[in-house]
Amino acid sequence: MKIFIAGAGAMGSRFGFMLHQAGNEVSLIDGWQDHINAIIENGLEVNYNGQEFNIQIPIYNQKDLDINSKAELIIVFTKAMQLDEMMKDLQPIISKETKILCLLNGLGHEDVIDKYLPAENIYLGNTVWTAGMTGPGKVKLFGTGALELQNIVPGFEKEANEIAEALSSAGLNAKYSDDIKFSVYQKACVNGTMNGLCTLLDGNMNEVGATSTSKTMIWKIMEEFRAVADFENINLDLDYIYDKILEFNDINKLGNHYPSMYQDLIINHRKTEIDYINGAISRKGTKYGIPTPYCDFLTDLIHAKEDLLDAK
Amino acid sequence: MKIFIAGAGAMGSRFGFMLHQAGNEVSLIDGWQDHINAIIENGLEVNYNGQEFNIQIPIYNQKDLDINSKAELIIVFTKAMQLDEMMKDLQPIISKETKILCLLNGLGHEDVIDKYLPAENIYLGNTVWTAGMTGPGKVKLFGTGALELQNIVPGFEKEANEIAEALSSAGLNAKYSDDIKFSVYQKACVNGTMNGLCTLLDGNMNEVGATSTSKTMIWKIMEEFRAVADFENINLDLDYIYDKILEFNDINKLGNHYPSMYQDLIINHRKTEIDYINGAISRKGTKYGIPTPYCDFLTDLIHAKEDLLDAK
Repeated sequence: MKIFIAGAGAMGSRFGFMLHQAGNEVSLIDGWQDHINAIIENGLEVNYNGQEFNIQIPIYNQKDLDINSKAELIIVFTKAMQLDEMMKDLQPIISKETKILCLLNGLGHEDVIDKYLPAENIYLGNTVWTAGMTGPGKVKLFGTGALELQNIVPGFEKEANEIAEALSSAGLNAKYSDDIKFSVYQKACVNGTMNGLCTLLDGNMNEVGATSTSKTMIWKIMEEFRAVADFENINLDLDYIYDKILEFNDINKLGNHYPSMYQDLIINHRKTEIDYINGAISRKGTKYGIPTPYCDFLTDLIHAKEDLLDAK
Repeated sequence: MKIFIAGAGAMGSRFGFMLHQAGNEVSLIDGWQDHINAIIENGLEVNYNGQEFNIQIPIYNQKDLDINSKAELIIVFTKAMQLDEMMKDLQPIISKETKILCLLNGLGHEDVIDKYLPAENIYLGNTVWTAGMTGPGKVKLFGTGALELQNIVPGFEKEANEIAEALSSAGLNAKYSDDIKFSVYQKACVNGTMNGLCTLLDGNMNEVGATSTSKTMIWKIMEEFRAVADFENINLDLDYIYDKILEFNDINKLGNHYPSMYQDLIINHRKTEIDYINGAISRKGTKYGIPTPYCDFLTDLIHAKEDLLDAK
């Protein structure tokens, strides 16, 4: 299959690497020139579960997509706030037949993609694979994972299953989901609590989870996710989600870990994805007439912190 | 007049010093033993608008108030969370005639004092005097100020005026107010915005005031103060209060200043007065059936930060 990976950071490189190794015709697209140059000069260097690989794989700057070729499948892995720009830049490789699989964290990305190609070509997914970058052109891929995906327009289940099969053939453990929005919401709800709180309070999952008020705050936030999801006929189970959050806060599991938003903002002074997590709930709440003060306030606080740290 | 200052930190020392200099029989009461010892050994050392004073003034530990004497007036200047303990400790010097003037920042202190003496003996005040401590037994008193005060039970206006006169005779610019609760609420509303936000976001007034979301957050918080105050027939003028806040955020005025809550928690790892500012609005909101999610969330966030910093 002719596959383009739009956003070839750590996760994009994992998917690109595994799909390439499985015999697909894979190209990477990214906006980070140092990373692009490194891959052009030295290939993509992959530490895959401890084993070193170096593969030659085409990579393009998204601003210079002068390719006489259309994608069969584009897997989108940008940061949420870069999605719209990426979709614009992808125009040269999109045809009527091009399918897009969106694996971004957060809510509402289908509404952005929808502006650039027909909804029946859009597939939404949710993955628990992980990946890390160690430098331009270099990634470290450990552990196992899986993903779920679904067509967003009814009637395209066959196509969704075909994409899942292609990914699974590359070892990516993809399967068709008949309720992808539920999974996406559930993940966003998990991320919508500790991500913002740890970033704001400058603590790791275990430390923030152990504060006297964390439970109240987490539940207030989760209840807003539930109210908004309810309106879209998605029924979140908050007891289950809260147990998940507690697991992440457990010092023996992920507890001494700083969530990705903390790393983005506090460590690297980069803008966060808050607008696509709590901010998405705020926007949907406004649209549906559902008050979401905790998500509103948390979103504004994180933006204020971005301003204070001059995040780019 | 026989006056006791309950809570003889910076502000208590200012009032004690000025009232003592004006010929009143003033004693200090405090709980900080190093400060007490310093004043017993070396007197209270005062830098008063640049001039050095050293005065001998009685000081007692609140836990050891073995005095055969009743107060005519007690001026309370503790931290809000120490008020209840102080009131318990003051019992030996309180008679039926003892009047208490409460000058603490924040809301709802009269309900605490009310447990220990009749409401007609309680006077509520609000001051803009400032003061600083430079070490145990040493204070620095610069600038000018004023205060307003009022009886909390109607019919005691004469007594309130007498207290105001006694304070004014000592240069404290006190005057009777016929709406002290309005002033107290107004000050709490000013403090209820930037105090919590600067503490949480780790920025000074100017920096936090300059963030893209500060205006929205400030207004949301102020609107909760207004809703709760309305229920008590106190009508806050939010445009006026917002202008006040902008003034404090102005780099040319107080803008590069960190508010007292920031100094308490972030610098000194001491517990904050949040429960008597935003937390008081939350409790009143619950009682009156008025939602106060911004004050609830801000109060919980500050408590979480106290836990993370192991504040005492």
